[in-house]
Amino acid sequence: MKDSIKVFSGNGNPHLARAICDYLDLPLGQVTISRFSNENIFIQIEENVRERDVFVVQPLCSPVSENLIELLLMLDSLRHASARRITAVIPYFSYARSDKKDMPRISIAGRLVADLLQSAGADRALTMSLHSDQVMGFFRIPIDQLNPIRIFCDYFRELGLEDTVALATDAGSARRAGAYAIRLNLPLAFIDKRRVSDEEVHARAVVGDVSGKTVIIFDDEICRGTSLLEAVKTVHDMEVREVRAAATHGVFANDALERIEALDPLKQVIVTDTVPRQPTKEGSKIRTLSVAGLFGEAIKRIHTGESVSGLFE
Amino acid sequence: MKDSIKVFSGNGNPHLARAICDYLDLPLGQVTISRFSNENIFIQIEENVRERDVFVVQPLCSPVSENLIELLLMLDSLRHASARRITAVIPYFSYARSDKKDMPRISIAGRLVADLLQSAGADRALTMSLHSDQVMGFFRIPIDQLNPIRIFCDYFRELGLEDTVALATDAGSARRAGAYAIRLNLPLAFIDKRRVSDEEVHARAVVGDVSGKTVIIFDDEICRGTSLLEAVKTVHDMEVREVRAAATHGVFANDALERIEALDPLKQVIVTDTVPRQPTKEGSKIRTLSVAGLFGEAIKRIHTGESVSGLFE
Amino acid sequence: MKDSIKVFSGNGNPHLARAICDYLDLPLGQVTISRFSNENIFIQIEENVRERDVFVVQPLCSPVSENLIELLLMLDSLRHASARRITAVIPYFSYARSDKKDMPRISIAGRLVADLLQSAGADRALTMSLHSDQVMGFFRIPIDQLNPIRIFCDYFRELGLEDTVALATDAGSARRAGAYAIRLNLPLAFIDKRRVSDEEVHARAVVGDVSGKTVIIFDDEICRGTSLLEAVKTVHDMEVREVRAAATHGVFANDALERIEALDPLKQVIVTDTVPRQPTKEGSKIRTLSVAGLFGEAIKRIHTGESVSGLFE
Amino acid sequence: MKDSIKVFSGNGNPHLARAICDYLDLPLGQVTISRFSNENIFIQIEENVRERDVFVVQPLCSPVSENLIELLLMLDSLRHASARRITAVIPYFSYARSDKKDMPRISIAGRLVADLLQSAGADRALTMSLHSDQVMGFFRIPIDQLNPIRIFCDYFRELGLEDTVALATDAGSARRAGAYAIRLNLPLAFIDKRRVSDEEVHARAVVGDVSGKTVIIFDDEICRGTSLLEAVKTVHDMEVREVRAAATHGVFANDALERIEALDPLKQVIVTDTVPRQPTKEGSKIRTLSVAGLFGEAIKRIHTGESVSGLFE
Amino acid sequence: MKDSIKVFSGNGNPHLARAICDYLDLPLGQVTISRFSNENIFIQIEENVRERDVFVVQPLCSPVSENLIELLLMLDSLRHASARRITAVIPYFSYARSDKKDMPRISIAGRLVADLLQSAGADRALTMSLHSDQVMGFFRIPIDQLNPIRIFCDYFRELGLEDTVALATDAGSARRAGAYAIRLNLPLAFIDKRRVSDEEVHARAVVGDVSGKTVIIFDDEICRGTSLLEAVKTVHDMEVREVRAAATHGVFANDALERIEALDPLKQVIVTDTVPRQPTKEGSKIRTLSVAGLFGEAIKRIHTGESVSGLFE
Amino acid sequence: MKDSIKVFSGNGNPHLARAICDYLDLPLGQVTISRFSNENIFIQIEENVRERDVFVVQPLCSPVSENLIELLLMLDSLRHASARRITAVIPYFSYARSDKKDMPRISIAGRLVADLLQSAGADRALTMSLHSDQVMGFFRIPIDQLNPIRIFCDYFRELGLEDTVALATDAGSARRAGAYAIRLNLPLAFIDKRRVSDEEVHARAVVGDVSGKTVIIFDDEICRGTSLLEAVKTVHDMEVREVRAAATHGVFANDALERIEALDPLKQVIVTDTVPRQPTKEGSKIRTLSVAGLFGEAIKRIHTGESVSGLFE
Repeated sequence: MKDSIKVFSGNGNPHLARAICDYLDLPLGQVTISRFSNENIFIQIEENVRERDVFVVQPLCSPVSENLIELLLMLDSLRHASARRITAVIPYFSYARSDKKDMPRISIAGRLVADLLQSAGADRALTMSLHSDQVMGFFRIPIDQLNPIRIFCDYFRELGLEDTVALATDAGSARRAGAYAIRLNLPLAFIDKRRVSDEEVHARAVVGDVSGKTVIIFDDEICRGTSLLEAVKTVHDMEVREVRAAATHGVFANDALERIEALDPLKQVIVTDTVPRQPTKEGSKIRTLSVAGLFGEAIKRIHTGESVSGLFE
Repeated sequence: MKDSIKVFSGNGNPHLARAICDYLDLPLGQVTISRFSNENIFIQIEENVRERDVFVVQPLCSPVSENLIELLLMLDSLRHASARRITAVIPYFSYARSDKKDMPRISIAGRLVADLLQSAGADRALTMSLHSDQVMGFFRIPIDQLNPIRIFCDYFRELGLEDTVALATDAGSARRAGAYAIRLNLPLAFIDKRRVSDEEVHARAVVGDVSGKTVIIFDDEICRGTSLLEAVKTVHDMEVREVRAAATHGVFANDALERIEALDPLKQVIVTDTVPRQPTKEGSKIRTLSVAGLFGEAIKRIHTGESVSGLFE
Repeated sequence: MKDSIKVFSGNGNPHLARAICDYLDLPLGQVTISRFSNENIFIQIEENVRERDVFVVQPLCSPVSENLIELLLMLDSLRHASARRITAVIPYFSYARSDKKDMPRISIAGRLVADLLQSAGADRALTMSLHSDQVMGFFRIPIDQLNPIRIFCDYFRELGLEDTVALATDAGSARRAGAYAIRLNLPLAFIDKRRVSDEEVHARAVVGDVSGKTVIIFDDEICRGTSLLEAVKTVHDMEVREVRAAATHGVFANDALERIEALDPLKQVIVTDTVPRQPTKEGSKIRTLSVAGLFGEAIKRIHTGESVSGLFE
Repeated sequence: MKDSIKVFSGNGNPHLARAICDYLDLPLGQVTISRFSNENIFIQIEENVRERDVFVVQPLCSPVSENLIELLLMLDSLRHASARRITAVIPYFSYARSDKKDMPRISIAGRLVADLLQSAGADRALTMSLHSDQVMGFFRIPIDQLNPIRIFCDYFRELGLEDTVALATDAGSARRAGAYAIRLNLPLAFIDKRRVSDEEVHARAVVGDVSGKTVIIFDDEICRGTSLLEAVKTVHDMEVREVRAAATHGVFANDALERIEALDPLKQVIVTDTVPRQPTKEGSKIRTLSVAGLFGEAIKRIHTGESVSGLFE
Repeated sequence: MKDSIKVFSGNGNPHLARAICDYLDLPLGQVTISRFSNENIFIQIEENVRERDVFVVQPLCSPVSENLIELLLMLDSLRHASARRITAVIPYFSYARSDKKDMPRISIAGRLVADLLQSAGADRALTMSLHSDQVMGFFRIPIDQLNPIRIFCDYFRELGLEDTVALATDAGSARRAGAYAIRLNLPLAFIDKRRVSDEEVHARAVVGDVSGKTVIIFDDEICRGTSLLEAVKTVHDMEVREVRAAATHGVFANDALERIEALDPLKQVIVTDTVPRQPTKEGSKIRTLSVAGLFGEAIKRIHTGESVSGLFE
Repeated sequence: MKDSIKVFSGNGNPHLARAICDYLDLPLGQVTISRFSNENIFIQIEENVRERDVFVVQPLCSPVSENLIELLLMLDSLRHASARRITAVIPYFSYARSDKKDMPRISIAGRLVADLLQSAGADRALTMSLHSDQVMGFFRIPIDQLNPIRIFCDYFRELGLEDTVALATDAGSARRAGAYAIRLNLPLAFIDKRRVSDEEVHARAVVGDVSGKTVIIFDDEICRGTSLLEAVKTVHDMEVREVRAAATHGVFANDALERIEALDPLKQVIVTDTVPRQPTKEGSKIRTLSVAGLFGEAIKRIHTGESVSGLFE
């Protein structure tokens, strides 16, 4: 396998890319990425990739536009360097949040980015925890979506699940929290609220019974943390026992980390390493579980033609 | 306008097509649709359509496969007959329900059908109440999605909304019911349940306060009615005042109509005429509100370049 | 080979698909095909097909629209399940009859269906006895066309060919009958007639010498049988010795079988098993020759890279 | 109309292009066509064509490859010069003869050329008397096919049609001759022969009654004239009264003209001006009927959105 | 015209966009551009654009990746908002510098960006002074390239051109400087040097006669200014009278402006406003000539169908 | 390798194709190429190519249009004959000279031809010494460009390089001559001239020091030889020691060979065998170096997945 497969990384999350390569027992592919003085990005693949099965690991994390253009240029370089097959591995596909036209004359940017990836030369995609499952339909190329459900469930089962409720932070994410509730056999509650704009959120009421219970909030990503923190405050008023949260993508924009650490009723936040982050301090509430093995195994199976869905059975 | 626009109908819902033409004060376009003895469908457009702005009205209602192939053939005939622009008007896009890959090796058929429409020659699409908003992202061609929210809200406001609750039949449809709740300023409840298969549904509990209240169940389509009837039974046990339901698409497959008429606690079901149906009997619970005017107005605006989203402001 | 190739069947002709698998000594691939209550077709491929060379057997026989949509959905499912190559095996491509625009504003539906197959994910096609050879040019993907000429010729040679004439039922099919005439070294005759519509046919005269001879009528498909039965009556009036007929596709729509069995001057009708049929009764005139071996051999050669045209040299 | 429409000509048949412009009362568009010393063709459109409806007249006559490349370059120049719509007007589409794959590993070149025209920028095509009607299905862009049936029929009706037979030179062209037979109400005959190769033809027998009659041979093109001359000799042996021939495209390759003039039994050959030719000498058998008006009228109707099929009703 | 045309601006150069609108006597189109907290860019077109002819002004200046993604999203929004035609107006197309594969396994990024623009919905492009003319061939959509030659030549003619030489900073840009030399009837010189990398440049010798003369250096863009400043120093050693420079795109990255102001032998630098810049201080060497009128006039002509090349005759 | 790779040749340069096959120790692939009497080109691949890696060698030399159409038809035949991968090997890509739009309303024909190759079925391209490097960006398919720099440099180094200058015939080709100057460590000079039209050239002055030196003129192709002969005359006036010339493509149109042999100051002309030529007479100035080994090695590496750029390190 070592001769026929190559894994490259952009600047998005080289730590994760290296961990994936460790799982696969492969060296990370050599590539030069630099900027000309007019800010044009320059990519040179530094190894022969002819007829190889190539994977490019690049989450759409900050700086998002830079990382996206880097990814597109890497795909194009690989295509013209005659790679046999190119898979865009996008552990965090941020534009999946732009998945519908709920205002006039906006772009369904998730669809556009899927098209751009194909234009640039991607033959396949591999991603994790899309904001909505329908986003897979935006891709004409085959795409595999991974999820950390087993990893998270194993973690929470070990902690113990007595008198515990799964909570969705709003009606829109009820489906996702519901999937965890089914898997962990927990009741489901949600917060009936209105998102006025990206920044303003107005919680109204908890629908479902949470008092005296341990509440686990499930979401796909934690960004500014506003929804999460509002939810914690809302259920805290209802005398819950303790509150934990789990989300695949720990974006933690702006002062999200500080605000999370500061909010007492929130005991712990579980995320994965799809998005890179500064090392957390001693005693942090943030707990990061790695998905490198999951991605590594999926890449191996894509390469050898084994079932990827078999990973989740 | 009469010279430059033409509206054709397949066999899906000619009644609606004629009502749309009435709104536009246009004759329905002449077309021959027949079957050869080997079941090949034969389409002949019987009027010159060169340089015309053409709309084809065809919901994907029963018989779905026949209606879909008819639509594809009509689009192709119109393209090769040199129509200037062709809009597929699909009031009920049934395959929008196949919008995600929640099992291994299934087709996101909604995406496939969007691609087929474009292959066959559609330049635009116009539809209503897609099962999920993300389905708009499956189309590369411009698409407008209408909704009956204003029509339904006007109807319910006239009935009176005191002590009323909006109910979603499961977590997945909470977003849709939530949109009505916001518009009508109602509290929201939902039923926490598990859909075991297309046929089997297991309700668990009503999340939210419904006792003593009028409950309005909102959904996008009523097909076999299983979800709806289960929901009615579940809330009926909680001593609600009365139960009504509203859904855009009244498919009423199998014995759905009989079962609805027979279930006492359900007082009324409001649907639109996106899907054709036998005339209801005197005293039926089914109340049909027409969307012909809404489609007619949208077609007029698409043709003249006025804002379609302006219809919903 | 068994690891790298998979053959699936839709509901079109599972009997033929199984016979092809028997020839290849392969199990038929596992797939679930069902209908939701809104008639949406649901397809799930039940085996891992990653990197496999996959063949889907589905003739466009009755119910044609259902079988076509099934085929498109299977192709799409296989593409997104990461099959390496997908070949649509369409033993009877009914829409090949819609191969020209001989009236204004009709669709060349054969071309449209070829486009739809490609949109849905077919990488290649394999078919038999297209209504006209030009239909191969409707496909951008590579396509192989098989024919039963050797099978039919072997059969008739064994019967004996003294004082025999090949007959075309009209001028349009003279080319096809001519190919048999050349191969069997027979004189050619045809019926000069006018097809007024799909249903009405008016024979005028037999062009060529048939009296006192055995007449074999060659055609690509027998559907309602009208052309065939008219031809038999016409030549019967000219005191022929006996009349036989051979056609690849035995569609036998409506009461075609009854009418054929009832028409005395017609002694025998040879067809293949591209289209499924109820088992014929004892003493039937219909004789079915299987093309399963031919399809099986072609699939084997496509898979291993041997010449398919070599089959016909 | 004069401001919004432009007609250009390549070197294929400028005489016909000018005659079309005369019909339309338009000046022929200015274009420079030259060759660099390395034989690269250079095209410069010498007039502003932005937002114009442009037609390029270029039959694929000798030198075919040069004319085809010229046409492709003109289409590309016009596209990048921002023409609003470009119609390739190809009165003689020679590659329509390559319409099927009747030998292994050959190209269906008619399909390829259709694809090349679209790649180069053609939005529509307009042609005449394709070798087979199925070739229209090779085009994804809208295409109109004209025919000279009315022109030829008017001509022959004026000559008188008593005791006249329509003759097809082989089984393959029986359909075309049949169309004339129907229109002129004549009986149909054909020659049962074998075409061994492009050059060798072996006639076997006339099928149908021709003795003592006037025979009119109908074909789509006369190239080397071999089929025609063989046919004349064959029917001449059967004591026919006189023989005439009609074909849309008078290619007359090699010494075809001399051989036609020399063969006594052939009285007259009617062709059109789709292909240019040296002026015929006094007393020639060749009679050329112009299709410039037909093309001019079709172009006018395409431009204004009137029905083109209406021309043939 | 005001009703049918709309001009929008991204954040690249709103000042230029407004100046273009002033020329056209149009208001700048309303659009909201913001960032979500996960850095996803959000675009909403705030005016109805159905059936309008829309132009989006966005140079690829710093921050380049942000501006490129903004542009792609605006194009996509406009397409799905049913604009009739969308022109990407890119006064500075920075990626044109990545126009060849002069090292193994690099991307011809100029080609990729052209493809991305088309994927996102651009129907046409309008740009200025591409690094090489061949880049126009990277676009499948029609593209117009403007240049400031007349503006610059008028400026220098007014200054006086006695004893003046046009200088190219290296052999690669000799063609561009040559175009100015021809237009201004000046002799041409160039510097024979080697560009070791993007940052390191090694001048070797001036080829051509410059001593005692006024030297004007012509280039397409001034970025870090390294080439320019090296050239100035090189010719300064050869006792030239004075040195001026002209370039379309004044990028002035890093400390380029300070270094230019500090280098005494360089008397003046002429650029245009394709790239925005802080207002220059009193006494600056930088002189900016506006191209807003040129872009405005080109947009007007594209809209009305007048010749754009006519602008340069 | 012999089983999986096949090399075919059109009529462009069969001698080179055979030499390439000799290098690869392969037989040249069997193909029939003929013309029908209507000049349609007929191609039949005479060997099974299913699943093979196929290369078609065809330079665009005289007759250019014939050779281009031949190539397109061969590509199409191979695609539909199910070749696994098809590489168009175009040693001389003449249309690369049409690489920019330096006059209004002309075609960038190099781009068009690249598109046509892809339409016809080419999966890759392999070429040599494109007129400008940017032409590689015209191809969406992977393309490798070879060059004879090492071959030419070895040749000149052997001759001795004392007091030698590299000369470009005009500013536009300074880049190419510069590449040789760097490699051979020679000073660079160029002729400042104006090309008035394809035929007329006006030299003005030699820029750089050439008197008393050996001058080597480097260019990509020699066609009519006008530029070359003008350059020789111009430097001859400046008392150079001797003049040699080197160009990849020896087209030698019209009387170029005679004029070259007749011009005394020109001592030698080195070209390669990308373009076929009559054998030169005893004592000719033309020296032809073969690139068959270079192409053979590149084809081998493309087939086996080794680096092609490695050939030039």
